[in-house]
Amino acid sequence: MIYFLNDYCSGAHPAVMDALVRNNLTLQPGYGLDEFTIEACQLIREKAKTPNAQVHIVAGGTQANALVISSFLKPFESVISCHTGHINVHETGAIEGTGHKVSVRTGENGKLTVEMIESVVAEHTDEHMVRPAMVYISQTTEVGTIYTKEEVMAIREVCDKHGLILYIDGARLASAIAACPEFGYEELGKLAHVFTIGGTKNGALYGEAIVIVDERLQEDFRYYTKHRGALLAKGFVAGIQIGELMKDELYLEIGKHEHRMAEIIAKEAEKANWEFAYPPESNQLFFLMTPEFSEILRENFACSVVEKRQDYDVVRIVTHWASTEEDVEQLLDFINNNRQ
Amino acid sequence: MIYFLNDYCSGAHPAVMDALVRNNLTLQPGYGLDEFTIEACQLIREKAKTPNAQVHIVAGGTQANALVISSFLKPFESVISCHTGHINVHETGAIEGTGHKVSVRTGENGKLTVEMIESVVAEHTDEHMVRPAMVYISQTTEVGTIYTKEEVMAIREVCDKHGLILYIDGARLASAIAACPEFGYEELGKLAHVFTIGGTKNGALYGEAIVIVDERLQEDFRYYTKHRGALLAKGFVAGIQIGELMKDELYLEIGKHEHRMAEIIAKEAEKANWEFAYPPESNQLFFLMTPEFSEILRENFACSVVEKRQDYDVVRIVTHWASTEEDVEQLLDFINNNRQ
Amino acid sequence: MIYFLNDYCSGAHPAVMDALVRNNLTLQPGYGLDEFTIEACQLIREKAKTPNAQVHIVAGGTQANALVISSFLKPFESVISCHTGHINVHETGAIEGTGHKVSVRTGENGKLTVEMIESVVAEHTDEHMVRPAMVYISQTTEVGTIYTKEEVMAIREVCDKHGLILYIDGARLASAIAACPEFGYEELGKLAHVFTIGGTKNGALYGEAIVIVDERLQEDFRYYTKHRGALLAKGFVAGIQIGELMKDELYLEIGKHEHRMAEIIAKEAEKANWEFAYPPESNQLFFLMTPEFSEILRENFACSVVEKRQDYDVVRIVTHWASTEEDVEQLLDFINNNRQ
Amino acid sequence: MIYFLNDYCSGAHPAVMDALVRNNLTLQPGYGLDEFTIEACQLIREKAKTPNAQVHIVAGGTQANALVISSFLKPFESVISCHTGHINVHETGAIEGTGHKVSVRTGENGKLTVEMIESVVAEHTDEHMVRPAMVYISQTTEVGTIYTKEEVMAIREVCDKHGLILYIDGARLASAIAACPEFGYEELGKLAHVFTIGGTKNGALYGEAIVIVDERLQEDFRYYTKHRGALLAKGFVAGIQIGELMKDELYLEIGKHEHRMAEIIAKEAEKANWEFAYPPESNQLFFLMTPEFSEILRENFACSVVEKRQDYDVVRIVTHWASTEEDVEQLLDFINNNRQ
Repeated sequence: MIYFLNDYCSGAHPAVMDALVRNNLTLQPGYGLDEFTIEACQLIREKAKTPNAQVHIVAGGTQANALVISSFLKPFESVISCHTGHINVHETGAIEGTGHKVSVRTGENGKLTVEMIESVVAEHTDEHMVRPAMVYISQTTEVGTIYTKEEVMAIREVCDKHGLILYIDGARLASAIAACPEFGYEELGKLAHVFTIGGTKNGALYGEAIVIVDERLQEDFRYYTKHRGALLAKGFVAGIQIGELMKDELYLEIGKHEHRMAEIIAKEAEKANWEFAYPPESNQLFFLMTPEFSEILRENFACSVVEKRQDYDVVRIVTHWASTEEDVEQLLDFINNNRQ
Repeated sequence: MIYFLNDYCSGAHPAVMDALVRNNLTLQPGYGLDEFTIEACQLIREKAKTPNAQVHIVAGGTQANALVISSFLKPFESVISCHTGHINVHETGAIEGTGHKVSVRTGENGKLTVEMIESVVAEHTDEHMVRPAMVYISQTTEVGTIYTKEEVMAIREVCDKHGLILYIDGARLASAIAACPEFGYEELGKLAHVFTIGGTKNGALYGEAIVIVDERLQEDFRYYTKHRGALLAKGFVAGIQIGELMKDELYLEIGKHEHRMAEIIAKEAEKANWEFAYPPESNQLFFLMTPEFSEILRENFACSVVEKRQDYDVVRIVTHWASTEEDVEQLLDFINNNRQ
Repeated sequence: MIYFLNDYCSGAHPAVMDALVRNNLTLQPGYGLDEFTIEACQLIREKAKTPNAQVHIVAGGTQANALVISSFLKPFESVISCHTGHINVHETGAIEGTGHKVSVRTGENGKLTVEMIESVVAEHTDEHMVRPAMVYISQTTEVGTIYTKEEVMAIREVCDKHGLILYIDGARLASAIAACPEFGYEELGKLAHVFTIGGTKNGALYGEAIVIVDERLQEDFRYYTKHRGALLAKGFVAGIQIGELMKDELYLEIGKHEHRMAEIIAKEAEKANWEFAYPPESNQLFFLMTPEFSEILRENFACSVVEKRQDYDVVRIVTHWASTEEDVEQLLDFINNNRQ
Repeated sequence: MIYFLNDYCSGAHPAVMDALVRNNLTLQPGYGLDEFTIEACQLIREKAKTPNAQVHIVAGGTQANALVISSFLKPFESVISCHTGHINVHETGAIEGTGHKVSVRTGENGKLTVEMIESVVAEHTDEHMVRPAMVYISQTTEVGTIYTKEEVMAIREVCDKHGLILYIDGARLASAIAACPEFGYEELGKLAHVFTIGGTKNGALYGEAIVIVDERLQEDFRYYTKHRGALLAKGFVAGIQIGELMKDELYLEIGKHEHRMAEIIAKEAEKANWEFAYPPESNQLFFLMTPEFSEILRENFACSVVEKRQDYDVVRIVTHWASTEEDVEQLLDFINNNRQ
């Protein structure tokens, strides 16, 4: 079946796999102290124009989030998130598992706003209340939308005003940069105190690079990483992959491909009057469908119902590095031949 | 100044203090294995008509909440609470500090409803999401309202339907029973899997009794208690106090006094057209006032602004065991002489 | 039965109880912001000659230990303790429950030495190992021995050398100062980064004062306290007690009494050739006895077997503020009339 | 330089890499629900003759240990380990980070004995002490030794006697089975309640299979896994690797190769009178050398000093799947030409 189920349904991008095969037999020190990891981290620093940033690579996204949040907060501090944030909804309490509250506000289109942040901060008064100390946003958001550069600049401003750390979860950063090229590595390096560059959903077998821009947050991060069980023995395997994604802008190319595939689908769906549950801005598209129509769709394409809204299914269609033009063609055919 | 600031502003009820003095020199085994604690726990079992319940006494309310919740949940499970719940707002992340998420719904008048619980349960699908496993309600609520017996019966029903533990935080239980006598110890024993009887805010120096009704939850509770630092060396001091409160229905008498004092104030305030922020149902009254009027009030009486609502202060006035009729008279005078 | 079971077997010292009764009806702000607590803390600062120290009062000893240790360590850091340390043996994993390892060395007579600390530090190399960051000693130790001032000076020196925090658990500090007057409040204020003054075992109903001498450790301690459920609503009750103990050197007087009672017993036991399991230096005495003899003793006096050593029981006899000369006389009679 | 540094210094065994390449473009559901993982788990069940075992694959060893231990223990319970156990020494407090104490006994040759376990159990009396509930052993041990089948049978017996869970960490299981073929998959399935089969150190890029034999421990394990950030989005990548290692006994073949390489080295070293720090039983060899000699060795071969013993270095030499006969030849030459 044709897969629009998610963006982690197939292995590594061929170039990444080639790099793994090519370097498979080199001998390397463990735990990310190898030449590949060093090079990958250096490439990231250069792209982000953050010569003093620290870069660490871990296996997965939930792990990265739990590690970052628990390392930079004091026990009684919380992280602010939109209600749709991955750390709030889809991590099975992993953040709370490290002892920290997620301070949630209900937002539109998956986005946190300056007002939402101000509202959490305003509520806090004294030691009887959890103290907000970090802002979490994801780019792209969990519902496929994109923060504009201006939006993030405003968020950073409110963070600076209140002494909050801005953490940008880039699990789907490739797709985000494709959708909004003026908010790329360099802007991330300027606006985030810490951000991630997600490999798993963008052409790697696994691997999320954590970029700690703010030097005050860099101390002892390898201790934190090991303590959370996130220091990989064969760190070089992740280093090879992230390095390959950084070279020749492969990462951005993958994002562009994902984005282009999604754009074609979104346009055709729009023409066919399919209703969007969230604005179509990146490689994740969300449609409102009757359960009957949703079922027919899912008989033909691997995709998922992610939400139930009264009489409608919210169906997610995701394009990924391995999505082909043929896959998209077939979905376009379906769109044109199956009116809701 | 006259104190309507809170219900933990003065020492022990004279009868409780007498008991402490009277028994001060008896020699007792430690850690709650003494005769006073044994008797106090037995009295509670009798009142609640729960002969098989376990009773444990700890020092404070946040401690009791963190202990109960962390002992009965698996690491990946959450407790459902109204957004105004003490565990959500006023415990500085203590619940999350034990690793557990508080699954919050915004409620009216401080109360959780069946619909709110159902909505949390409905949202949960699988292992990618935190699993709700307990319902937390406080009686009285944090905004001074009272659950009716019928409301709690409905909540228990939905708990049974979904396998949720019902935990009722009785930090202000004396006042609650005074307000709603048909929902007393016995009904608590029937409807809650676990509940607390708060001493601190009702005549004791300190001490919260945790009543574990459901036998499946009783195993190893002394281990959990010590592990959380909540097993008191001189447990008998708390035992003496809780025992005294249970004898001759002193606890209920204190609640009645608090309730009567509040009722008089509420009636006069109503007559004077003071606006309530929440329905006046127990010993905590919440008024909407202009900041100017709130300031004048607070120059004359110790009470606090607990919330800011646009152009209004929400001012809390609390009656307690040591509130006197003279105190109340003076407040009535103020009410009648100072029109908002 | 006559109680030599422990030092938390009876209520408050009469002077402390008087203070509680006397001040019972004063109205006070909550959470330790009251005048009694302020005065008690000021008295402590004066005695310790640490004008910039912060003092916080919590209910119990395990709670104090877990709070202090978890507040001052990073998640991946450990606290060094002798194997007999309370935090290692008798807190049911409460320290680990806050996420921290106790790095243990086997010591003699309950004491940690410079060599033991150096050995833990030497073992640590890099981020693959927990990092020792604090030293925990208790004065008196759990086996009734006393650190000399010189020993603690040497420990502090090794702490400074390696950047370790020195935490002295003074649960039985009154008895310790009685035994070793040249190592009193002032010396504690000089040598410890943080120490406690235990009320529970020295005349209070409950209450442990945490004295944070080092200013770098003082930030946000009320947040940490509330987060761990240790901020008492009626903080003034503990404040009254600790204040009373500090006035007129009542605390030291209690210690002297305990010490004198124990000394008399120890001398007589020595004469009668009773064998000590640990050197008799404070109000806790430990004897090696045959199980038969231990049983006879315990039929006559409340005391406990704390350890089994091959053919011997280790029996603990503890004197406390309420131990009377008559109690001691009876024990002396027993000693003289019952040869092992 | 020739690498005897560790067994995670090179990529995947060629057959494993081939499988990754071959299946790279197949489309799979996420989170270990794919056909490869299902097949790999089935193969493990068959080999271990545990048709009802659950198998879960996570990325790393410390992660696997923290996940297993924290999922099966109550908050106040501890895991018993030899002082050399990985969970005690080399996980930066990761186990304590999940709230659990490691109850340690000093052992010989990296092994836990029945006596050591009994001693921990005997020490535990009541709720004032952490309760031992699990036994952790690693096969091979961290110092390269091997438990015999009889030793593990005796350990399991003492576990059953005291209701302890037996957890066998098989990070280096391939080498262990090569050294002790009568204690293979099937025996593990019989004697362990839960064990791991380590991929990272035996031919995979990453991947540790957790085999939960005891059905009482199987409930909700996917929840625990996600909660700890250990559920891999592209689970199929690990599934492919573990599956390939299980097919045609590749895993055992890798172990045999490692073992044979080590055996040759050990024999030659013995002949040359090199002194062993621990008995040479598996692919990790530990030698006592003067610092001078150790330095010369390490100028020629990548290997590490893992311990300092007075005047000696303890040097670890590790063979791995990519160790060649030529590598070993060169080391033999060195041994023969460089007398200590």
